[in-house]
Amino acid sequence: MNLSFIPDSTLLMGPGPSPVQTSVLSAMAQPTIGHLDSQCFSLMTEIKEMLQELFQTKNSLTLPLSGPGSAGMEACVTNLVEPNEKVIVCINGVFGQRISECVRKVGGEVVELHSHWGRPTDPEILRKTLAEHSDITSLCFVHGETSTGVLNDAQTLCSIANEFNILTIVDAVTSLGGVEVKVDEWKIDAIFSGSQKCLSCPPGLSPISLSERAVAKINQRKSTIPSWFLDLSMISEYWDISSRTYHHTAPVNALYGLHQGLSNVLKEGSQKLFTRHGECYEVLASGLHSMGMELLVDKESRLPQLTTVKIPEHVDDQLFRRLLLERYNIEIGGGIGELAGKVWRIGLMGNGARKEHVTCLLDAMSSILVR
Amino acid sequence: MNLSFIPDSTLLMGPGPSPVQTSVLSAMAQPTIGHLDSQCFSLMTEIKEMLQELFQTKNSLTLPLSGPGSAGMEACVTNLVEPNEKVIVCINGVFGQRISECVRKVGGEVVELHSHWGRPTDPEILRKTLAEHSDITSLCFVHGETSTGVLNDAQTLCSIANEFNILTIVDAVTSLGGVEVKVDEWKIDAIFSGSQKCLSCPPGLSPISLSERAVAKINQRKSTIPSWFLDLSMISEYWDISSRTYHHTAPVNALYGLHQGLSNVLKEGSQKLFTRHGECYEVLASGLHSMGMELLVDKESRLPQLTTVKIPEHVDDQLFRRLLLERYNIEIGGGIGELAGKVWRIGLMGNGARKEHVTCLLDAMSSILVR
Repeated sequence: MNLSFIPDSTLLMGPGPSPVQTSVLSAMAQPTIGHLDSQCFSLMTEIKEMLQELFQTKNSLTLPLSGPGSAGMEACVTNLVEPNEKVIVCINGVFGQRISECVRKVGGEVVELHSHWGRPTDPEILRKTLAEHSDITSLCFVHGETSTGVLNDAQTLCSIANEFNILTIVDAVTSLGGVEVKVDEWKIDAIFSGSQKCLSCPPGLSPISLSERAVAKINQRKSTIPSWFLDLSMISEYWDISSRTYHHTAPVNALYGLHQGLSNVLKEGSQKLFTRHGECYEVLASGLHSMGMELLVDKESRLPQLTTVKIPEHVDDQLFRRLLLERYNIEIGGGIGELAGKVWRIGLMGNGARKEHVTCLLDAMSSILVR
Repeated sequence: MNLSFIPDSTLLMGPGPSPVQTSVLSAMAQPTIGHLDSQCFSLMTEIKEMLQELFQTKNSLTLPLSGPGSAGMEACVTNLVEPNEKVIVCINGVFGQRISECVRKVGGEVVELHSHWGRPTDPEILRKTLAEHSDITSLCFVHGETSTGVLNDAQTLCSIANEFNILTIVDAVTSLGGVEVKVDEWKIDAIFSGSQKCLSCPPGLSPISLSERAVAKINQRKSTIPSWFLDLSMISEYWDISSRTYHHTAPVNALYGLHQGLSNVLKEGSQKLFTRHGECYEVLASGLHSMGMELLVDKESRLPQLTTVKIPEHVDDQLFRRLLLERYNIEIGGGIGELAGKVWRIGLMGNGARKEHVTCLLDAMSSILVR
């Protein structure tokens, strides 16, 4: 077989994509079937059930959108926020900022609640801000902020939103599969994730789940949803077992991969998976401390699957990461947004959360820094 | 390797997806690399160049969007049509209707030019309609209407739009790779396609190309583009070799597949590919006629890669297609929209356009119908 592009395989220890298991890659290489084939419908039903289990929800509108995590974000926002509605967005990194931009793009009005990048959103400040605005309809925040490595307290933030009877829209792109995400118990109304983080699938799909309250809000909209591609009232008809109405051609092979990735995750068991992420993070954090390095985030708010470490003084960010890649074949992430050039982002996600990876990385970092 | 879902392979002779070559499937199963890796940038550059060759364009904004064909449609519409702008949409099937819905959803005003489903848009009626409306800014039409098998005369329709100095937005989902598409020569301003038709890749990516005039129109918009995910001013920065600014995590493995699919197409050569599609269609049409069946579309407007045949009286549509699938493992498409239950849609697309497939299908159809 003559392939026209053959990538050099790299150990992916950045903020995603994460290393994809061979079983997922093999699943994706199976022959394409039709998107209206009954076999495809069975595949879709099983994916939906596995996503419900992982999201810990009974939400009927639970499915993977045919686009990356940012399509999931936009679907939640564009379906749930009507023009001129006021929404509060908690911002403590690039991805909170992104939700705010998205809300503005679909015509919503944003109240931005900023926290220091590297610190979690303060629930009391959220409560105070909500008390000051009587006309807010939704709260948006990022569960695991991929740009800073902060884990925001989703349960508490959602409970406050519930006190004020507003909808909650949660970015779980990096959190799902790495830490607990309890959609029903925490009363999350709309949540979106990505295939390429702790689910260890290639990028390209965005699992989402919407509560009955969110679906009711979509059904009661005054204005048209300003999107055909992401109109959830149509997409849900294709994923609904009782209608299966054609909307678009689903990315069949990517769904094979997601099915396999979800099977792998559920076979291992969520709790074991969370423990594995936590343990790997502990080894990493301890190793970085031993090397005299400082983490950006306080211990109690760290996202185990993504660690941000401050770049030591006098170390050239670009050169360091280039050497890591060229000599050791390891990719880590640089900082983005206001943390560009200030931190490195080390991901231990899904299949990538292995102690042997941590050891390789620490050894390589140490060798480069010593010179 | 224990795979959790193993599809029964089917000969795909419907309206897409088409049969995917083993080389494309193998390419997609290669290890995932980072979306900001320099290897990934090389991959993207090569894909862009191959798409430019296939679209016959020098357009710098030529790239595959990270979503199916309907994401491509929405990207063209949402970036190029501002709220309250008047747009003419030629409708002679489901996909023309879909563009009209999409324009309305983003706030545009639509002048619908309807033609009989199964007949091409009449250029003279288009000219007359344009002359009646001085304030139309864009013309939208479907080049190869997948719901009817009609090939609209893109060159003539675009030349008329140019007489009136309006933009042209063209759906080439089914046409690209099967018949000639000359973006620059025909002065198409925005065109979108899909990976799963004549490019013989799995569904999930939408190649698009925008002219300089279209890019200028985006840059001069008065209103914000009502989408974050499909904002081409940001996506093009990620695909631009001189900036490579992160926008979203590109679907790396799907891009491996598209790269291989495009390489296969260009290696065979467009002209040979078009000839192969035309020859296969001839064998199919002649076989169907011999069986006493009638095609929906007049000879001069037929799309070689998609043939619509009228369902003979007294034949049960559902039963016939089920027998074809269960006994012969062949999938063809049913009618959709106003043609539901009235026609079958037989696709000979890309890798699927093989005379041996036509023979298999004709034999199978004949066996079922004779009983």
